[in-house]
Amino acid sequence: VADAIRAFKPRFVVIAARGTSDHAALYAKYLVEVVHQLPAGLASPSTMTLYGARPDMRDVLFIAISQSGRSPDLVESTEVARARGACTVAVTNNLASPLAAAAAHAVDVHAGAEQAVAATKSYTAQLMALALMLGGSSASKAELLPEAATATLAANPSDRVAALAARLRYVDRLVLTARGYSYPTAREAALKLMETSYLAAQAFSGADFLHGPLAIVDSSVPAVAIASGGHSAAATRQIVSRLEAAGAEVITVGAAGELALAGPALGEELSPIVEILPLQRLALELALLRGHDPDTPRGLMKITETR
Amino acid sequence: VADAIRAFKPRFVVIAARGTSDHAALYAKYLVEVVHQLPAGLASPSTMTLYGARPDMRDVLFIAISQSGRSPDLVESTEVARARGACTVAVTNNLASPLAAAAAHAVDVHAGAEQAVAATKSYTAQLMALALMLGGSSASKAELLPEAATATLAANPSDRVAALAARLRYVDRLVLTARGYSYPTAREAALKLMETSYLAAQAFSGADFLHGPLAIVDSSVPAVAIASGGHSAAATRQIVSRLEAAGAEVITVGAAGELALAGPALGEELSPIVEILPLQRLALELALLRGHDPDTPRGLMKITETR
Repeated sequence: VADAIRAFKPRFVVIAARGTSDHAALYAKYLVEVVHQLPAGLASPSTMTLYGARPDMRDVLFIAISQSGRSPDLVESTEVARARGACTVAVTNNLASPLAAAAAHAVDVHAGAEQAVAATKSYTAQLMALALMLGGSSASKAELLPEAATATLAANPSDRVAALAARLRYVDRLVLTARGYSYPTAREAALKLMETSYLAAQAFSGADFLHGPLAIVDSSVPAVAIASGGHSAAATRQIVSRLEAAGAEVITVGAAGELALAGPALGEELSPIVEILPLQRLALELALLRGHDPDTPRGLMKITETR
Repeated sequence: VADAIRAFKPRFVVIAARGTSDHAALYAKYLVEVVHQLPAGLASPSTMTLYGARPDMRDVLFIAISQSGRSPDLVESTEVARARGACTVAVTNNLASPLAAAAAHAVDVHAGAEQAVAATKSYTAQLMALALMLGGSSASKAELLPEAATATLAANPSDRVAALAARLRYVDRLVLTARGYSYPTAREAALKLMETSYLAAQAFSGADFLHGPLAIVDSSVPAVAIASGGHSAAATRQIVSRLEAAGAEVITVGAAGELALAGPALGEELSPIVEILPLQRLALELALLRGHDPDTPRGLMKITETR
């Protein structure tokens, strides 16, 4: 598929997704802009579905990401993009899905059946498929991922994460922050905490935080900062200072963080694939402690069909 | 400026902004996609500032929106976009700002000095400038705006909005939802409630809500739904049913809503300019009732300089 994209020579990239997959889409947007030096945007599928827009998509690479491959709005917007000239790629966990059929190219993320409503392994697998497809030379480090993931899980054993969850047991709201490649991790961790523990979990990029939402933070609101290295970590440390000045307890995800990233260095491009792991485990332990079934959030279905 | 954009014949649109202006950017994205049938995306300025990306911006219309025109990340990304071939437009409340100087074209939103930290009139003015520039034939209805705004403010007098605020006085978290053109209103109202009343206010597009965050809603979490008419209102009514089924009290903004939109019909494209008004007033009344100074949120400065 990467060869087909290269041959198409896209000049702009549009990525469409919902929910967890939308955070994989945001990760792909950073890869496209930084590695491929192309302008990119996340789709608002409603412009094509509710409003019937039929935009000129020549020279556009259109990537649709969906675990189930079955959300009608993504299928319809992929069909529109293809009819209007885009090179269309579906990234899905189900090659037999309508989304895979709608796109000219389909990438199987090979996650196996995702049994819980809250997606976890399929998110990691989406990021990896996108990194292999769009990551350029950084993709060569992908062979280090199994070792890095194993080491990171070992560095955050269930009992230690459960102790952190115990400190957060009575928390009703929480903020998360990161910049650059790690920002999708903050967004996805917020969604996991919402889905499994029903917290008001809000993720802000470091820059957006300073443009308003910082006002909600005081000593009653814990913060999670993801700073796994490189440019984004340096920028995030400034935000951590502001959060601490506002009185917040800040829990850090990083090489020296309370939620530690361990194993071989992956570089900023691939780190998101591993840095979500201790946060998924935190959502699991917190849900169990609060008496919720993390596999079956209230009010949700596994396959969400939106139009 | 609209003439210059037409002459440039853009094939892709990128819009850069932070905070309140980012919600004006989202509104502009809908106008570009629906009215002009062009693919569009919101910029992640950090790819150009932190990561030094220099994307190929030929045939790209790059719009930067900032009240102060002084955030270094927006100035730098506008300079990069211009050097790399984009048609650059600054939409700002200060034509003497570095942002206006960096762009090839500048639009003055003419809001007058914005004295409070939380932007209000400059947001409305940004939306109007964007509608006049990008709204196509819908812009002809702009002459109805003064009457619609006056009627809507009259339909939501301070004492009535204060009574609603009294019902929400002890609320710690709140969700907002809308679709399409009204989604930026939900995002901006959430930011006002965060900035002035320090609530955990979270806005979700109707579709994204169903892909996970709906789990956080129960009878303890009030919801605000914006449904001012047309395609987006019909889609939002389905979400309202799901919120009510989850036990939430739903406060509606719309022609027949508790926060009523009054005056002449504006159409979906222009309604966001007016529908934010009763929500800004709600944020004001709630902040006063909770004993906060709505003009001076804790932890923030009027001109936010992010890199």
